[in-house]
Amino acid sequence: MTATVLNAEQLQEILASSFPGSETPLVDEVNGDTVVLRQPVGARHGRPGGTISGPTMMMLADTAAWMAILAQIGPVLLAVTTSLHIDFLRKPDMTDLMARATLLKLGRKLAMVDVTIYSLGSDAVVAKAQVTYSIPSSRP
Amino acid sequence: MTATVLNAEQLQEILASSFPGSETPLVDEVNGDTVVLRQPVGARHGRPGGTISGPTMMMLADTAAWMAILAQIGPVLLAVTTSLHIDFLRKPDMTDLMARATLLKLGRKLAMVDVTIYSLGSDAVVAKAQVTYSIPSSRP
Amino acid sequence: MTATVLNAEQLQEILASSFPGSETPLVDEVNGDTVVLRQPVGARHGRPGGTISGPTMMMLADTAAWMAILAQIGPVLLAVTTSLHIDFLRKPDMTDLMARATLLKLGRKLAMVDVTIYSLGSDAVVAKAQVTYSIPSSRP
Amino acid sequence: MTATVLNAEQLQEILASSFPGSETPLVDEVNGDTVVLRQPVGARHGRPGGTISGPTMMMLADTAAWMAILAQIGPVLLAVTTSLHIDFLRKPDMTDLMARATLLKLGRKLAMVDVTIYSLGSDAVVAKAQVTYSIPSSRP
Repeated sequence: MTATVLNAEQLQEILASSFPGSETPLVDEVNGDTVVLRQPVGARHGRPGGTISGPTMMMLADTAAWMAILAQIGPVLLAVTTSLHIDFLRKPDMTDLMARATLLKLGRKLAMVDVTIYSLGSDAVVAKAQVTYSIPSSRP
Repeated sequence: MTATVLNAEQLQEILASSFPGSETPLVDEVNGDTVVLRQPVGARHGRPGGTISGPTMMMLADTAAWMAILAQIGPVLLAVTTSLHIDFLRKPDMTDLMARATLLKLGRKLAMVDVTIYSLGSDAVVAKAQVTYSIPSSRP
Repeated sequence: MTATVLNAEQLQEILASSFPGSETPLVDEVNGDTVVLRQPVGARHGRPGGTISGPTMMMLADTAAWMAILAQIGPVLLAVTTSLHIDFLRKPDMTDLMARATLLKLGRKLAMVDVTIYSLGSDAVVAKAQVTYSIPSSRP
Repeated sequence: MTATVLNAEQLQEILASSFPGSETPLVDEVNGDTVVLRQPVGARHGRPGGTISGPTMMMLADTAAWMAILAQIGPVLLAVTTSLHIDFLRKPDMTDLMARATLLKLGRKLAMVDVTIYSLGSDAVVAKAQVTYSIPSSRP
């Protein structure tokens, strides 16, 4: 395990306090430039045909990218997404979703994260995203 | 007004039946290859700093693209997003969001839609998206 | 015509001096936040099937975005592309390509441009791009 | 080494015959779903500041994606790019560029490839792309 500024428990607390009242993803693993989240999946994430909605995956990719950045720079809550690109490759079953986010660049102004989404217990890539965040000038 | 296969009322019914129990966007205008949606914005769409969350805008872009396609091809409920790219340009106030979706290509297999998001009563672009859907082989 | 910092002739000179020895696009129109370029198309841009190569269109989108930014901020030659997303919609004939680039955001750090590519004499969109540039802190 | 339909020599021949007269990338490695290309870099790829042009990297990403697909399906020369998204992370030196392309999905209609670009002899990611190709219905 490579050291990070925030660990899994601290990232989980940030999620809980940033999205009060909603069922946030679970921070499953934090290791250097990579964070793994697990999104519990329920009926409200479903779509006709027994699959998970696209917005559920987009939100998970966005959140996982944010976590990968905060793990390195600390609780910069006002970092904002500037762009998100996602390709949907396979229709996932109604199984919990996993998102592996790897920080590819951490600059002074921009951070860029690569995110792979798959179903728990499977290796097949369900969706693939590239997410860019803008980091405020004054960090904590 | 250019004729479409489905009108605003029919598109609104599809939204209501596809997302039961949630506050769907309102179909504001349907005209040829363009559909305009209005997303009522409430506290649950908010983020610290008094702005609207990125996922709210991603979901709106995705839904607006779907509506622009269905307006032309009818109720193909199983059309699925294959890719979505969005750039976030300005932090919107907590005002209702508008999405103008224009169908740029309707092929046999793929449809591609350009989406501009802005705040009600403003011209400034808040977010800009390009969305691709895959259309099932057998249409109704 | 809305005033810009650089006019068509000045933008054309920047292209000529930045890409010496190559056949640069022609700056066809400059009007406020929008710049139109024309890419002369020859055999070297071709692909089997009598169409134009994807990289020709990507390069044109990138250059058109750069021109739309410089028209507003002056000759900031070291502005660099940070991301480019392009959807290819139709296979163009071997006709000159047109690119209409509209500056959607000009921030202190980032500029974002929407680019529509079509064939000379046609309205059908051939390719659609969203391009982001990073602007160096010290402008001229 | 996992078996592919085409090996490195066969892919190299396809590149040479598809782009006659130009300095094509070298097929460095082919292994299952992954292909590695090496782009020799010369003065014509340069930009002010001693770095490599964006279009050089976009073209390399596009070509590497094509090679990863052909390695699996054989010489389908008419496969065409339908979308390309690229984030530019670092300005590379004027060193040969490497592109590692991994096929993430091979469907009947669409193939999606993840591409990482780095400089020869370095691990730092220079650019990251997601590329989608449309595959013609009738394969050889």
